[in-house]
Amino acid sequence: MIAPLTVSPLAVSLGDPAGIGPELIAEAWARRVEENLPPFFVVGGAVLLAAAAQNRGLNVPLAQIQNPSEAGQCFGRALPVLGDDAYGYHPGQPDEAGARLAFASLSEATGLVSQGQASALVTGPVAKSRLAQVGFTHPGQTEFVAESCGVAGSDAVMMLAGPSLRTVPLTVHVAFTDVPKLVSQDLIVRKARTVAKALARDFGIASPRIAIAALNPHAGEDGLFGDEDLRIVTPAIAALQAEGINASGPHPADALFAPHSRGSFDVALCMYHDQALIPIKALDFDQGVNVTLGLPIIRTSPDHGTAFGIAGKNIANPGAMIAAIRMAGECAMRRSAP
Amino acid sequence: MIAPLTVSPLAVSLGDPAGIGPELIAEAWARRVEENLPPFFVVGGAVLLAAAAQNRGLNVPLAQIQNPSEAGQCFGRALPVLGDDAYGYHPGQPDEAGARLAFASLSEATGLVSQGQASALVTGPVAKSRLAQVGFTHPGQTEFVAESCGVAGSDAVMMLAGPSLRTVPLTVHVAFTDVPKLVSQDLIVRKARTVAKALARDFGIASPRIAIAALNPHAGEDGLFGDEDLRIVTPAIAALQAEGINASGPHPADALFAPHSRGSFDVALCMYHDQALIPIKALDFDQGVNVTLGLPIIRTSPDHGTAFGIAGKNIANPGAMIAAIRMAGECAMRRSAP
Repeated sequence: MIAPLTVSPLAVSLGDPAGIGPELIAEAWARRVEENLPPFFVVGGAVLLAAAAQNRGLNVPLAQIQNPSEAGQCFGRALPVLGDDAYGYHPGQPDEAGARLAFASLSEATGLVSQGQASALVTGPVAKSRLAQVGFTHPGQTEFVAESCGVAGSDAVMMLAGPSLRTVPLTVHVAFTDVPKLVSQDLIVRKARTVAKALARDFGIASPRIAIAALNPHAGEDGLFGDEDLRIVTPAIAALQAEGINASGPHPADALFAPHSRGSFDVALCMYHDQALIPIKALDFDQGVNVTLGLPIIRTSPDHGTAFGIAGKNIANPGAMIAAIRMAGECAMRRSAP
Repeated sequence: MIAPLTVSPLAVSLGDPAGIGPELIAEAWARRVEENLPPFFVVGGAVLLAAAAQNRGLNVPLAQIQNPSEAGQCFGRALPVLGDDAYGYHPGQPDEAGARLAFASLSEATGLVSQGQASALVTGPVAKSRLAQVGFTHPGQTEFVAESCGVAGSDAVMMLAGPSLRTVPLTVHVAFTDVPKLVSQDLIVRKARTVAKALARDFGIASPRIAIAALNPHAGEDGLFGDEDLRIVTPAIAALQAEGINASGPHPADALFAPHSRGSFDVALCMYHDQALIPIKALDFDQGVNVTLGLPIIRTSPDHGTAFGIAGKNIANPGAMIAAIRMAGECAMRRSAP
């Protein structure tokens, strides 16, 4: 007999209650059977989640719970919601109370996962500028979650994962001109090590093939235009290979994401934001998951924003939220396997 | 009665005879009916084209012609080849004599189109380093063709076009660090004008929607990381709009190529090579066409290289060559329309 699933339910933070997060969480629960989703509970938003579901035409009974341990039992018949706030549903109309609720939901969900009361964290989309108005001092949810777990924000690694591709940006929200100053042999080696370890532990890929993208077009054609690929990226790859990490490159980035090339690696380590995000959004937009690697906990997020402009209009695509929940569950299963 | 096609046949240059060009030209002719291709002739390579076709298992009779005017009559029953060189077929084994043949084919094909003896130019893939060994002094075929037509190489505009997308890189084979120095309001305005004019004349899009990509991630978030989008790209767009050109942006590049966004523009003007080429190669690899805008003649090329490693192995995909020939024919028809 196969042992039953032993991981505890996932904790899902609401995201901004005026964004598309709540309706997509409700939709994910409604599709839990067909999408084969693991049990999860939402932290906060009982009143607004019921309204969001109804507004979307979904039949989603809610089960208010006081403890994460109650979630597993009721998940089959109702969407478990932890807490009893009464904040209402105002899609597309973000306000300060909503931002406070989003912040509280994120904090509590993170804490529960850190304490082992939930097996993984899935974060709904927030508006950073709105969170900043209510005392959130981190650049983004990733850094907040990392530091809550005792990891420096700069040691957390963002991976974008979809059905076609996984990519990791080495540098993220920095000016284009700053990228070459930030790309260093040390940074490449550190991030690639984190990626290799996480893909083995949480994604079941024992020796992941890490394709490292070149900074310059055509990898600089032997230094003809740009020497960083020769001077920085190539020695970093050699150092990784010397450690037994299956790294290759520097690969010209335009060819790397072509169909015949995508199957030759498990993850692409890219030098900058757009290099990593252009291909994943072009290929996997509605199923893109943002995974944070290098944390003691598992954390995923749908790779889209609050989309206030379409919230409550019943048009937001639930694919990425569903994929984020499914991926978090799969990672939790692998991590808990003996 | 519909008037018969009045444009003259297209001139196709061989490309490097040891690359995949010859076999793909032969394959395109073999599929001329099902792919609805316009009449074309090849400049040079009669002996090797016959061998390349046979090697690929194709039944492609050749018709040696001495003048482009003979091509139209025989195209239906045989692949017209201009000239009578005897260079043999050695796939995957480039040499100097082959490079000289490729150069001669390119020169003659360009001359014939410039003189109006052929309606458009389709260039097969060459190896630039090999051409350089036989006296070719241009950075690439595009610059050679431009200067042969009396246009400065820097005024020719490369557009990549596929079924999903059209993109134009503002800067091309330059180091990553040099991109911000080269991106100027003047360059954006000049290139966008050329693009607008060419899409109207040759692609039948009267007022093309030109989406201009941001240099920085998230377009710099109001100057938070990188001010070029505010300082350079935004005023360039305003200047274009003041001229009546339908330009928009600066658009964050990661979102620009997502499925829901791609339908909102006719062409994306990108700031650098990889920004333009990553999405087109990810989405349209086997059908990508390189079109040169801003010339007095029409010139297209399949967006791939010589691929010496797979030449003669009957595995090279003919999609891009077929698309390049079809697109050149369509542009020629539009340009010749009264």
